[in-house]
Amino acid sequence: MTTFPLSPGSTIGILGGGQLGRMLAMAAARLGFDVAILSPEADGPAARVAAHSIVGDYQDPVALKALADISDVITFEFENVPAPALAELQRLGAEVAPPARALAVSQDRLVEKTFLNEAGIPTVTFARVDEAPDLRAAFQKLGAPLLLKTRQGGYDGKGQVWVDRAGGADIAMGALGDRPSIAESPADFRRELAIIAARGRDGEIALYPLTESHHEGGILRRTTAPAKASRRLLAEAERIAATLLGALDYVGVIGVELFERDDGRLLVNEFAPRVHNTGHWTLDGCEVDQFEQHIRAIAGWPLGPTAAIHHVEMTNLLGEDVNGWARLARETESRLWLYGKRDALAGRKMGHVNRLSRLDPQAT
Amino acid sequence: MTTFPLSPGSTIGILGGGQLGRMLAMAAARLGFDVAILSPEADGPAARVAAHSIVGDYQDPVALKALADISDVITFEFENVPAPALAELQRLGAEVAPPARALAVSQDRLVEKTFLNEAGIPTVTFARVDEAPDLRAAFQKLGAPLLLKTRQGGYDGKGQVWVDRAGGADIAMGALGDRPSIAESPADFRRELAIIAARGRDGEIALYPLTESHHEGGILRRTTAPAKASRRLLAEAERIAATLLGALDYVGVIGVELFERDDGRLLVNEFAPRVHNTGHWTLDGCEVDQFEQHIRAIAGWPLGPTAAIHHVEMTNLLGEDVNGWARLARETESRLWLYGKRDALAGRKMGHVNRLSRLDPQAT
Repeated sequence: MTTFPLSPGSTIGILGGGQLGRMLAMAAARLGFDVAILSPEADGPAARVAAHSIVGDYQDPVALKALADISDVITFEFENVPAPALAELQRLGAEVAPPARALAVSQDRLVEKTFLNEAGIPTVTFARVDEAPDLRAAFQKLGAPLLLKTRQGGYDGKGQVWVDRAGGADIAMGALGDRPSIAESPADFRRELAIIAARGRDGEIALYPLTESHHEGGILRRTTAPAKASRRLLAEAERIAATLLGALDYVGVIGVELFERDDGRLLVNEFAPRVHNTGHWTLDGCEVDQFEQHIRAIAGWPLGPTAAIHHVEMTNLLGEDVNGWARLARETESRLWLYGKRDALAGRKMGHVNRLSRLDPQAT
Repeated sequence: MTTFPLSPGSTIGILGGGQLGRMLAMAAARLGFDVAILSPEADGPAARVAAHSIVGDYQDPVALKALADISDVITFEFENVPAPALAELQRLGAEVAPPARALAVSQDRLVEKTFLNEAGIPTVTFARVDEAPDLRAAFQKLGAPLLLKTRQGGYDGKGQVWVDRAGGADIAMGALGDRPSIAESPADFRRELAIIAARGRDGEIALYPLTESHHEGGILRRTTAPAKASRRLLAEAERIAATLLGALDYVGVIGVELFERDDGRLLVNEFAPRVHNTGHWTLDGCEVDQFEQHIRAIAGWPLGPTAAIHHVEMTNLLGEDVNGWARLARETESRLWLYGKRDALAGRKMGHVNRLSRLDPQAT
């Protein structure tokens, strides 16, 4: 039985071995924890800064047993963890956080938006699409155009296609592999925003400043933080984040992607039940960063303060961008985070740079 | 042949596996480097956050060869590295930084003070003491009392004894094991200060703000940073640090312990050719911390900015102090660094806490 708060010297298990696991592992080490990484990759970014590395498939019962045996609490660094893996860990008596339900909800876009609306959190209007006729019917109900997305899988803009008219339903469904899908109305947004939030084991909530996201080709390119925002907008973003954390009975850090519509309303695009790329600015920009915050939350520690200490422009280093490290290292306002990935494939997140400037007192 | 600047993905070797190695390893990982730890301890604080761990004695030729083979540059985290170990690494063609000479000078208190004085850096007056008659003669030359220290070894107040009068020479020498020693005049200091400084491969120098040290029982207990200091005092501390770095043709971070005498003069107590406990405040208090700075320097990267962003009171968590982690975790101004050591032995450095407050604009 795990007792909370978890003492330093305990071991934190992480499903997934990428950069989020790497930064979580470093935060855990700072607080005196050991880390065990379970990943199919032997030499991934996270395993190289962790005390223990278990190499195996996420559904390999031997690997899951090894992780459960060594870990006092287990978390995950990506939202496509197979549900049976978490179920198996729980069957083995492991403590898992965030809760499996949050992961399950986030893994299905239809379930996610339905859940959000039922919790009183606005999203775009949407319709369930199992087959082409459902999509044609959706045009009747929602108008045109529609954004067709597979309910499961897909990230960084993959697994989605715009459909202009009902007549294009068959082609669109085919383009996504005729998989269970969701049709969404356009968000008509003027800005993409995001908010990182955390909830402790005692229900305590901590909210980071709102940020503005800039995507290119479906991939996050830059985060500007804190975002310029009216008090009303800020209050609504905070209401949404706090409501979501409560509705999910959440433990840990969550990333909530938002649309600010032309009419000023806020909609949730989606949430990720984990530390999030839009929170990387907190590493250098906030009192306690999102990675330490997640470790604090799942370890049953009190949450840390979240106020901004700098204005930050976070830029992802994608693919060969990382080859600019020598130039970036000369910029005195830049803090560099490189993930130790071997191959700079096109579009791959290789690192990020936080460019700091003086915090506008009005922004806090 | 190593080419500088070292590319991310390169491997940094570290002799020593304690908390300084741990914090260096985390800083290296942030910049995309892998780390290899050589330590006699299999499961030490540093090895648990490093990609590679080589377990062996510092003079084990097989272990040294393994470290040299895997590392693009090798550094050390404590100053008692046996000189033959560095010589062997250099014979194997390894790049070692800081330079072996700095280590050798720092390992012998007589050589160190002689070197400092020859470089124009003031210290207490001192005399070489090989045998009891030398100590009796020292009283003639320097007066009384004298602080007798072994030339080599000793740390945290160990290996030294006060001697009141020439008649106590034999007993004092016996107390230190009749080893080659140095007799020092009292420093008559009103404050103990320290300055962390860095020098890059191109000779660029970066100086951190001056700090005030508070020792208890010969062990650093607290650092207050930045220290309140006149411009004159600050300028003299900076002159001393820069002079020392140049005289040693240094590469890396150095810690310089200073005495501020009652008459306002600054003396160097000793220097450590490595990251230093009096620089732990920089982890949360400065633009770029001493650990990243050391990695930057030895990797041939440009040095980072060193300005303070917070006023910090750093307190070492010694022995059972670490059991106060739950209380410290609740302090919103406190940033906790725990080293993952298994046994909280009395006086052992288990972690530290940086308590942040607003920077006094006059102090910068």
